[in-house]
Amino acid sequence: MNEYKIEDISIGMKEEFQVTVTEEMLEMFCKLTGDCNPLHQNTGFAKICGYPDRVVYGMLTGSFLSTLAGMYLPGKYSLIQGVEVKFLKPVFPGDTLMIAGYVDEVHENFRMMKLKVLIMNQKEEKVLKGKMQIGWLSEACDFNKGGKSC
Amino acid sequence: MNEYKIEDISIGMKEEFQVTVTEEMLEMFCKLTGDCNPLHQNTGFAKICGYPDRVVYGMLTGSFLSTLAGMYLPGKYSLIQGVEVKFLKPVFPGDTLMIAGYVDEVHENFRMMKLKVLIMNQKEEKVLKGKMQIGWLSEACDFNKGGKSC
Repeated sequence: MNEYKIEDISIGMKEEFQVTVTEEMLEMFCKLTGDCNPLHQNTGFAKICGYPDRVVYGMLTGSFLSTLAGMYLPGKYSLIQGVEVKFLKPVFPGDTLMIAGYVDEVHENFRMMKLKVLIMNQKEEKVLKGKMQIGWLSEACDFNKGGKSC
Repeated sequence: MNEYKIEDISIGMKEEFQVTVTEEMLEMFCKLTGDCNPLHQNTGFAKICGYPDRVVYGMLTGSFLSTLAGMYLPGKYSLIQGVEVKFLKPVFPGDTLMIAGYVDEVHENFRMMKLKVLIMNQKEEKVLKGKMQIGWLSEACDFNKGGKSC
């Protein structure tokens, strides 16, 4: 987990990581949120609708932006203030996603930055693009405590 | 699960539902996304930062918008195209959230609508506000198939 402070951030900084979306993640998202829509849970229904397989929940793909902020950019002291995303192409189980964030604005007085975010699949097709506004936790928690690996 | 077609939708239509956020949901979100940031996973760290308890992931709160679209408004034939959210107040484990969507625009020619969304806690404090753009699946999948309960 990164621990960038606001003063470590400059425009153009980038962090990225990969995730392979599994069938199990779709089951878990249904259990977690109660969204058990058949497009995401029933392969037969998805095929009738013209897709090769169940479609990954857009908001599951979007949830990896939480990981981008909370683990990578800025990491430990992150506090997400707002998110805007557009879903550009469907994601399917087995797809490997590259989640990337680029610093677009830094407002040191407000302890806040804006990122451009982009998620691409293994074919380098853009599946999600968007923006995030991220602040920093209070300086009170800048201690070498906490942190938990999965 | 609702099964609204675009022709059933009119401006001002509203759907809402409640969810109580549990500690287990925070563990599940960490496992699902890899975001195991201590603000959400370590009560001691959250308290040092000035919160009474671990803070619920903003994107977990946001994930209930998937449920709003996929189960309620419009339900079965939903395809989320874009989401914008602002996080207004922290959510804590044990909070009961009311997730509400209101139809703000209907574009029948594009088989698309825009919702205003609002999430409030049990004290009727707004914790999230935003917008969603939602399309409909192809008419090919308008059959009485699929659906799976959690």
